[in-house]
Amino acid sequence: MDAVLKNATRESALEALRAYTRELVPLAAMQVRVAGYDGSRLRMDAPLAVNMNDKGSAFGGSMTSLMTYAGWGLVTLQLHQAGLQADVFVADSTVRYRKPLYADLQAEAELAPEESWAPFLETLVQRGRARIQLQARIALPEGEVMADLSGRYVAIAKG
Amino acid sequence: MDAVLKNATRESALEALRAYTRELVPLAAMQVRVAGYDGSRLRMDAPLAVNMNDKGSAFGGSMTSLMTYAGWGLVTLQLHQAGLQADVFVADSTVRYRKPLYADLQAEAELAPEESWAPFLETLVQRGRARIQLQARIALPEGEVMADLSGRYVAIAKG
Repeated sequence: MDAVLKNATRESALEALRAYTRELVPLAAMQVRVAGYDGSRLRMDAPLAVNMNDKGSAFGGSMTSLMTYAGWGLVTLQLHQAGLQADVFVADSTVRYRKPLYADLQAEAELAPEESWAPFLETLVQRGRARIQLQARIALPEGEVMADLSGRYVAIAKG
Repeated sequence: MDAVLKNATRESALEALRAYTRELVPLAAMQVRVAGYDGSRLRMDAPLAVNMNDKGSAFGGSMTSLMTYAGWGLVTLQLHQAGLQADVFVADSTVRYRKPLYADLQAEAELAPEESWAPFLETLVQRGRARIQLQARIALPEGEVMADLSGRYVAIAKG
C-alpha cells in the first residue's frame, strides 16, 4: 500500500471514530473530541468545564472513561486500517490518579512498551480473537502526567 | 447517638449526595441515580439506554465511571455521617470487565474485606489525611458480577 492510500485509509478510519464519538451519549456529554492520530498514538481531549467535580478539578470518572475510550479507539483504528472487522472490548485496566487536574483533559493512548500490532492482527486473523496491552495517560500540555492507565483490550472477529 | 438521630443523619447525607449526583454534568448525562444505602453498602444505577456502546452493551467508560463514583459516594457518606469535612479523591483503581452487560447498570460499593471505617476516620482526625480501600461491582439483579473494581480513596481534611 503506498503512502497516499495509507493516509486515505487512516483519514477514513479517523472520520468513522469521530462520528462514533459524537453519537455515544456519555462521550457527547463529556464533549470528547478526537484530537489527532499519528498512526501509533491517538489523542483525545475533553473540556474541564463539563467534567469538573466539587473541588473544581477533573472528575475521576471522566478521566478513567476518557483514557479507557482512547485505548478502545486506538485498537479500533488499527483494525480499520488493517481492513479487519472485529468487536473491541476492554478486558481490564489499572488507573493511577497522580494529582488533581485543574485543566482540560488531554489523553493519549499507545501500545504498551513490550507490544506490537503485527502479532495481534495475525492472531486475530488466525484465531478470530486476540488481546493487546495498551497504555494511556492524561498529561498537562507541558508533559506532566496527571493520571495513567494500563489496560488490556480484546478483539473478537465478526461473522 | 440514638437510632432515630443516626437515621436522620444518614438521610441528610444521602440527600446531599443525590443533589450532587444531579448537578455533575457527566453523571447527569449518564442518568446516575443513588439507589440505596444501608449504612455499609451504597447502590447506584444508570439506564443502559444512555450508556450503550456500538455493540448494544454497556459502555466500558460508563461502567468504570459509575463504580469509581459509587466508591467516592460511599466515603463521602461515611464522612458526612461522622460529621467530618474532607475532600475525597480516588487514588488508584483496578477494574475487570468480565462479560458484556446487556442490562441497566447496577453498581454497589462497600469496604474491602480487610478494611474498617473507624481507623480511617481516626487517622483523618489525627493526621488530616487518610486512605481506605474499597471494592465495587456491577452485577445482574440475580447476582452475577459483570465488572468489578478495587480502588483506593484518599480523604484530606478541609481547612
